[in-house]
Amino acid sequence: MYYIRDPIHGFIEINEWEKTIINQPEFQRLRRIKQLSLSDMVYPATNHTRFEHSLGVMHVATQMFDNIVKNEMDFLKNKLNYTESGLERERILIRLAGLLHDIGHPPFSHAAEELMPLKPDSVKDHYEHEDYSTAIIKNKFRRYIDESKFNDLKITADEVCDLLTKGPTSSERAFWRHLISGQLDADRADYLLRDSYHAGVNYGRYDLKRILRTLTVINEPETDNFSIGINKSGWHAAEGLIIARYQMFTQVYFHHTRRAYDNHISEAIKTLLESETKRSTFLPPTEKNLDEYLDWDDWKVGGLIKEGKAGLHGEIILNRQHYRRVYETKEVPSVGDLKEFEAISGEFKDRIGFIDTAEKSWYKVGDEDILISEEKSDSKYAPLSQYSSIVRNLVPNKQIRIYVPYENREKIKEQIEKYREEI
Amino acid sequence: MYYIRDPIHGFIEINEWEKTIINQPEFQRLRRIKQLSLSDMVYPATNHTRFEHSLGVMHVATQMFDNIVKNEMDFLKNKLNYTESGLERERILIRLAGLLHDIGHPPFSHAAEELMPLKPDSVKDHYEHEDYSTAIIKNKFRRYIDESKFNDLKITADEVCDLLTKGPTSSERAFWRHLISGQLDADRADYLLRDSYHAGVNYGRYDLKRILRTLTVINEPETDNFSIGINKSGWHAAEGLIIARYQMFTQVYFHHTRRAYDNHISEAIKTLLESETKRSTFLPPTEKNLDEYLDWDDWKVGGLIKEGKAGLHGEIILNRQHYRRVYETKEVPSVGDLKEFEAISGEFKDRIGFIDTAEKSWYKVGDEDILISEEKSDSKYAPLSQYSSIVRNLVPNKQIRIYVPYENREKIKEQIEKYREEI
Amino acid sequence: MYYIRDPIHGFIEINEWEKTIINQPEFQRLRRIKQLSLSDMVYPATNHTRFEHSLGVMHVATQMFDNIVKNEMDFLKNKLNYTESGLERERILIRLAGLLHDIGHPPFSHAAEELMPLKPDSVKDHYEHEDYSTAIIKNKFRRYIDESKFNDLKITADEVCDLLTKGPTSSERAFWRHLISGQLDADRADYLLRDSYHAGVNYGRYDLKRILRTLTVINEPETDNFSIGINKSGWHAAEGLIIARYQMFTQVYFHHTRRAYDNHISEAIKTLLESETKRSTFLPPTEKNLDEYLDWDDWKVGGLIKEGKAGLHGEIILNRQHYRRVYETKEVPSVGDLKEFEAISGEFKDRIGFIDTAEKSWYKVGDEDILISEEKSDSKYAPLSQYSSIVRNLVPNKQIRIYVPYENREKIKEQIEKYREEI
Amino acid sequence: MYYIRDPIHGFIEINEWEKTIINQPEFQRLRRIKQLSLSDMVYPATNHTRFEHSLGVMHVATQMFDNIVKNEMDFLKNKLNYTESGLERERILIRLAGLLHDIGHPPFSHAAEELMPLKPDSVKDHYEHEDYSTAIIKNKFRRYIDESKFNDLKITADEVCDLLTKGPTSSERAFWRHLISGQLDADRADYLLRDSYHAGVNYGRYDLKRILRTLTVINEPETDNFSIGINKSGWHAAEGLIIARYQMFTQVYFHHTRRAYDNHISEAIKTLLESETKRSTFLPPTEKNLDEYLDWDDWKVGGLIKEGKAGLHGEIILNRQHYRRVYETKEVPSVGDLKEFEAISGEFKDRIGFIDTAEKSWYKVGDEDILISEEKSDSKYAPLSQYSSIVRNLVPNKQIRIYVPYENREKIKEQIEKYREEI
Repeated sequence: MYYIRDPIHGFIEINEWEKTIINQPEFQRLRRIKQLSLSDMVYPATNHTRFEHSLGVMHVATQMFDNIVKNEMDFLKNKLNYTESGLERERILIRLAGLLHDIGHPPFSHAAEELMPLKPDSVKDHYEHEDYSTAIIKNKFRRYIDESKFNDLKITADEVCDLLTKGPTSSERAFWRHLISGQLDADRADYLLRDSYHAGVNYGRYDLKRILRTLTVINEPETDNFSIGINKSGWHAAEGLIIARYQMFTQVYFHHTRRAYDNHISEAIKTLLESETKRSTFLPPTEKNLDEYLDWDDWKVGGLIKEGKAGLHGEIILNRQHYRRVYETKEVPSVGDLKEFEAISGEFKDRIGFIDTAEKSWYKVGDEDILISEEKSDSKYAPLSQYSSIVRNLVPNKQIRIYVPYENREKIKEQIEKYREEI
Repeated sequence: MYYIRDPIHGFIEINEWEKTIINQPEFQRLRRIKQLSLSDMVYPATNHTRFEHSLGVMHVATQMFDNIVKNEMDFLKNKLNYTESGLERERILIRLAGLLHDIGHPPFSHAAEELMPLKPDSVKDHYEHEDYSTAIIKNKFRRYIDESKFNDLKITADEVCDLLTKGPTSSERAFWRHLISGQLDADRADYLLRDSYHAGVNYGRYDLKRILRTLTVINEPETDNFSIGINKSGWHAAEGLIIARYQMFTQVYFHHTRRAYDNHISEAIKTLLESETKRSTFLPPTEKNLDEYLDWDDWKVGGLIKEGKAGLHGEIILNRQHYRRVYETKEVPSVGDLKEFEAISGEFKDRIGFIDTAEKSWYKVGDEDILISEEKSDSKYAPLSQYSSIVRNLVPNKQIRIYVPYENREKIKEQIEKYREEI
Repeated sequence: MYYIRDPIHGFIEINEWEKTIINQPEFQRLRRIKQLSLSDMVYPATNHTRFEHSLGVMHVATQMFDNIVKNEMDFLKNKLNYTESGLERERILIRLAGLLHDIGHPPFSHAAEELMPLKPDSVKDHYEHEDYSTAIIKNKFRRYIDESKFNDLKITADEVCDLLTKGPTSSERAFWRHLISGQLDADRADYLLRDSYHAGVNYGRYDLKRILRTLTVINEPETDNFSIGINKSGWHAAEGLIIARYQMFTQVYFHHTRRAYDNHISEAIKTLLESETKRSTFLPPTEKNLDEYLDWDDWKVGGLIKEGKAGLHGEIILNRQHYRRVYETKEVPSVGDLKEFEAISGEFKDRIGFIDTAEKSWYKVGDEDILISEEKSDSKYAPLSQYSSIVRNLVPNKQIRIYVPYENREKIKEQIEKYREEI
Repeated sequence: MYYIRDPIHGFIEINEWEKTIINQPEFQRLRRIKQLSLSDMVYPATNHTRFEHSLGVMHVATQMFDNIVKNEMDFLKNKLNYTESGLERERILIRLAGLLHDIGHPPFSHAAEELMPLKPDSVKDHYEHEDYSTAIIKNKFRRYIDESKFNDLKITADEVCDLLTKGPTSSERAFWRHLISGQLDADRADYLLRDSYHAGVNYGRYDLKRILRTLTVINEPETDNFSIGINKSGWHAAEGLIIARYQMFTQVYFHHTRRAYDNHISEAIKTLLESETKRSTFLPPTEKNLDEYLDWDDWKVGGLIKEGKAGLHGEIILNRQHYRRVYETKEVPSVGDLKEFEAISGEFKDRIGFIDTAEKSWYKVGDEDILISEEKSDSKYAPLSQYSSIVRNLVPNKQIRIYVPYENREKIKEQIEKYREEI
């Protein structure tokens, strides 16, 4: 056993097998991808990386798994016919999926996702980082998974990938996916606490220990699907998680300056892609493209920006001369607000640096809901929004913001003010 | 007033003038210099930068100054003839000195200090980052200090630099320097808390609030010098600071893997200097050299490493294949221990990757001591080591370690064991 | 200056004058009144007292005051004609009001408030602890306020009391009251953080530093009243405070076991009042009654319970054999839910221990709202609920619970289940 | 399983059996015994109780046990012939011993230990709280241990007591005692963190997680005894524990005002014993005396003080008019210092309130040392003091202080000053 010090979870335990995986260059690359892109331009201490987050997700996913097993042993054994070694197998899979779930992230995390190519035969669906993750796991990590000398239970890279994808499945055991990707997953559980810690803010915290203790498996009788949920006694803790996410979104993730840099870094990488590869997007996630894709990390991008190859947006980043927000709608714009925005964005089209909309952000308030069960492992359940008036009334943020170059900010702000009075 | 969120101090307040200085490219560069070099290879969350530390030092230095003024107003006014505006002037100077004290750091902080050139006419004295700091302040920031429109009190860049240098001075007011550089300075006060927080360890904390409350000015009657000290009632807090430093040193700063990467990154930068500039050191800190010097930051180094230009040590860094410690002396080696080391290092000369000694480290247990005063502003005082048996008995760490390349670690370790038995 | 260590605020500073007040027996008595009554029966570490809370309120109220002065100096000087010494005077008053606001609390804090007598000529209005606070300040502390040798500015006990009462006032300066009692007061600001800390929970935290920075004075043009509000840039921090309170309410203050002990201790004190004074209530807050009233503290009550004088409820408290909740409505009961409760409470009348309703609790979600100002000190403002969909949709908790004696809990629970199926 | 919220450890898990024990009146009494006596007179937030500490010790002892089992499974099975159920049995025993180790504390914790009677046939050995603990376990808890329906492994109360006593034992398994009482025990591990948290200080923290990970069993070859120790890689964490204790001692436990109240409360309880029982000590820990002994708790003492039955010292406590320190030696007095003290204490005999010596305190720096093992479960080991110069040079605090009544403090202080100059 090895132990890695982590400010969020104390020590993260890894075994010999996992250490082999972590030591691969493709995994070490995550040390060079900042978790929150350039948010350090606003919150200077947010320099944490996908590396520490990935360890954290593995750790929390394991805690979730262990608690479900503890809480629902009878159910798992009797209803789902799990044996001890069957559970041990799921545990290994979930740990690997947690560890590798972000392995396909482009430089500067989400900011560069806009530069992913279209999917074949599609005019609007782009690849996402999950597609790169699964491609990398299957092509680069298969030998360290399927062929590992530690692999007594014949785990496969494909199974790990199954836990990361959203496609259909006939498996009764597909509900474990929710631990990696869902309203109550280890990814979110980790990043909220971690981002909050590094930003140094008082929100983003929630009662992880109580959530762990009240995790359960829910049987939806109509569909006979299984799902991860929370026992009724923990519904306030689940509500707390949603609130934590809401607060981090409004005050950190969607901070107007942070969003400016999401745009600048995305533009800068686009320029660099063009200068280095003569393309304006990354290559699709096929085996032969992976080495080129993986070569892109924050160090490469940072080095090229320093060389002056990223043009205007590179300069802006080096000197923190970001575009300034000169106009924004309310968080939930009315029809009238949207009309006003349309008018302004039309009128000032030539002077606008870029327009940012919360909806475009990777970070959305989902339609999904957390299931709350009345009784252990029972089919009596209801969505959290039925319990919580806060969750029920949370409105997705649809704020739109207009940014202009630094040097024009005052002039254009004034012009917009004037224009608003006229219309 | 502007407020920057900081996980250590809550919010750091800056004024319009300071904002102008922070916005200069030379200062923004500090965002691209990691405070603890590659210590994230051991403590993955230690990705913090000189930028946030510099803000923190300004903040703590101000708190120290304000508390001394509060505690010693009579003394400052009557003995040192300070007026209100005289104190205001010192306060501005101390803030600027705190803010700019690290402006001359090379990439990856202390690791690259070994690559600084010799001073003129010297065969062993190298420039240090402080020399670059003062050169940069005088050449790059003079116009934002001396000529600033906010500079009502005719502050000069030279005065700021005076607070950063250790040379002789006839000024009665020279004791303020101790707030920036000394056993009890704002630099140390900030980095211990900050490094501890980001590493996620339980030590490195101490009672800053009590230190602030017991800060005082001490008049050394023999020399008639003034000095910053602590009132007797706070001596345990001062002892706590020394203990915090000791614990951070032994467990974080001098961690054997961390020290390996200090060596690797230093070697890598040396290779890069050679390939990019045909020199194996940085240029001396003269006006015409500063732009080249300042161009070196972590992004440039990282980018060049990614391009493969840093040779073996670059590869080691990218893939975390550092040299391994195969032998080390005790923390305080005896004469016999040192003899054994000499024998081994002679015998294995050709197989050794590098030798690291705690003494060579930037981080030393100093000879200096903290002064404890019996009475306020009085000349009755004694060094902390007279109060504290812990401080009195702290022994400088002189551990020596031998590292070898990853692939040979087991073989050589065995050979050394065998050799030790023979001698 | 004296400094008292506080886990929430670090050090709390008090001056010589305040120390005199704190040293009075009436103030030392607050050391013997637990802040959260018997909530340690659920959260074992919540043994904190009104003493530390009172210091905390003084401290936070001062921070709020100082920040408003910093943020709104022009407004205070020009619109409200404040001089330096006028502001200094308000500051002293606010500190004293914060310090003394809870001086009239009965034993075990809110639990015993039900035992306060009716006001003269009223059949339903009881005295509240604030009435005792003002009586005690006027009768016991006048000599340490009005006649204090430190009282250069002729502060009066009556003025301190003015800040604690809700009655009408013609004073333009009445808005300072909001710092002691209001949606955004120092009382709440302190107890949320303090109760959360001692309970060891992750909620109850909010961004006090940001609230401090965005505090402002709002001029309501219709009424020409002044009010304390928050600048628009801090509305999410204000929302965070409301959320913190909501979470503490649902999970700590209104915890079903905690509420059981509120009932038990209230009954126990009632029994003790009867046995010791032949009355079932405290005496009204008149001068001659105050000594008797002040004699009641947790030590006296605890001692009498130990002597066996508090009857059944005393025994229950000593041995933690509280009544158990056997039925409860939803947090927001529908008409049907209320009908069901009525039927059950009628049917089981003779078997019920007691009924608890959230509405009866001292802790209510108020009708008031926090004012958010568009511009500094301006008359353009809107309530927080217009900004925040969470605040807008918060529904007052009206849950009703039925408790029965420990030994009958299972039998009656079953009977109620059965009865519910029948009706 | 039940879960109790704890600010130090998150949640403390208890099972049905342990819950039965916790629910006994003798255990509930611990809620009414403050952990740090009247230290809230200095650190107002230190109102925590033996109840929460006892849960904490059980929790930490379990963590220690589990880690030793994890680290040393081979050793335990092969050298000590443990079976799975044998280990399970030790675990239950250690949990119960941790839970009940303080069950015999008198009111206000250590302060009243001076009032324990002499042991039979001894003129200087007093009973200690451990003697009461074992008597209470054997007489009051036997039926909830030996006869419990949950007791599948035939645990006995006597075995639990064995873990709490220091007497000789022939058992190879006696080393488990060190988890409850020793240099590295769960008692200390918990109280340092808990007292530090409630006091709100920055020291008293140490690296519990690393200690847990490096716990080991050491075989002392000369004696063939077993002992609990720390692997070499954790020696800095063990040193950190000793430092934490040192700092808590000097700044919290031995704070001069805190020690004054230890004396006052001890005197007050003595007065109460005399008035209530006509004896000046508690009764010896025999079966028939236990009910009377257990009747004494903080509530009883507090109630009697409030009734005025505790005389002068009771009044002093109610109004915080404690005796003041007018003289003290250095922490490590020289022979000359001791002579001076003797002279002063002779001269001022009639005017002295009381004399306090650090040596008399329950809290001593022990002779014992922590064992550090070179290899896992090996017989190569050395004491921590050989590794750590700090531990090696820690000097026991032998400070002596003279206190006088509040009203005479200035006069006597002056007289002592004068007298010192004369001698």
